[in-house]
Amino acid sequence: MEREEALQIVKGQLTEHRYIHTLGVVETTIGLAWKYGADPKKAELAAIFHDYAKFRPKDEMKKIIQENGYPKDLLEYSPELWHAPAGAFLAEKEAGITDSEILNAIRYHTSGRPGMSLLEKIVYLADYIEPGRNFPGVEETRELAGKNLDLALIQSVRNTIGFLMKKNQPVYPDTFLTYNDLVKNRRIDE
Amino acid sequence: MEREEALQIVKGQLTEHRYIHTLGVVETTIGLAWKYGADPKKAELAAIFHDYAKFRPKDEMKKIIQENGYPKDLLEYSPELWHAPAGAFLAEKEAGITDSEILNAIRYHTSGRPGMSLLEKIVYLADYIEPGRNFPGVEETRELAGKNLDLALIQSVRNTIGFLMKKNQPVYPDTFLTYNDLVKNRRIDE
Repeated sequence: MEREEALQIVKGQLTEHRYIHTLGVVETTIGLAWKYGADPKKAELAAIFHDYAKFRPKDEMKKIIQENGYPKDLLEYSPELWHAPAGAFLAEKEAGITDSEILNAIRYHTSGRPGMSLLEKIVYLADYIEPGRNFPGVEETRELAGKNLDLALIQSVRNTIGFLMKKNQPVYPDTFLTYNDLVKNRRIDE
Repeated sequence: MEREEALQIVKGQLTEHRYIHTLGVVETTIGLAWKYGADPKKAELAAIFHDYAKFRPKDEMKKIIQENGYPKDLLEYSPELWHAPAGAFLAEKEAGITDSEILNAIRYHTSGRPGMSLLEKIVYLADYIEPGRNFPGVEETRELAGKNLDLALIQSVRNTIGFLMKKNQPVYPDTFLTYNDLVKNRRIDE
């Protein structure tokens, strides 16, 4: 699928604010893909579709998770997590995207998972640091993203966990395990 | 076992510094037990023995974990965690403590676990806030401990996780799950 067609499809699913965010993620994802050696076309398509299901009704997302083999424990945690697997499902079903690398980058862009692929890492990080994001620490992570993908990713996962803990919110276990996986593997790399 | 005998046994296992810490934990544990309705004698004994294995050689602790049905994934994480299950094992084997509530309070005083008992919570928290402890935020947790056990515990688990993440250290999964368990159950209570 070409960029313009994909953007057209996604634009119809999002608010203007969220569409502008998506364009920021696309731009950042492509940059990171070039830098770290991921396929820029796959990166672009994953970024375009990453929030595809963002505005679907909760009940629809819930049903998708329940009926299509996604981990049911997702439903015990924040609905903020649901649009990612629901988005992967709908990007395939409604927009005909079949590439599993792209679909997994959509699926795991909010929770992360242990053993993330390069493309999954790039989309997760781009979603966190795209130019429209503006929260304490984001500039530091942006700088790090230009130097070391894993360290920047650790920082973004850590900040996400810290943000939730500060509000006494539960944290999806795979997000915790993503953090552990990243810090353990980074150590082996060094 | 009476207090004096227990203290005598433990004193022989610890440095002076760690023995003084233990006395602080004992005092704090007893106070919390009275406040929150745990058995003060069990609380006292658990506190006295909580660091019983602190200075055992790593190899000995490792062997205890490997050969006595403790979760082997402990060995992939900080050795700081090992003295707690090893302490429970040795408190039974060497000092003849058989009460499972006391042994579990020793066993889980560093990692925590989902579904902690009242006694486990109290010893965990006392270890964190005893008068000898002096780190950023401890005073806040001490104050909270006088008002709400679970909230104080959440704060201490959260700070421990934050401390490890700040150093890019992995976090034992049960510690993460302890946090989630506490914040989830607190919400239901409210």
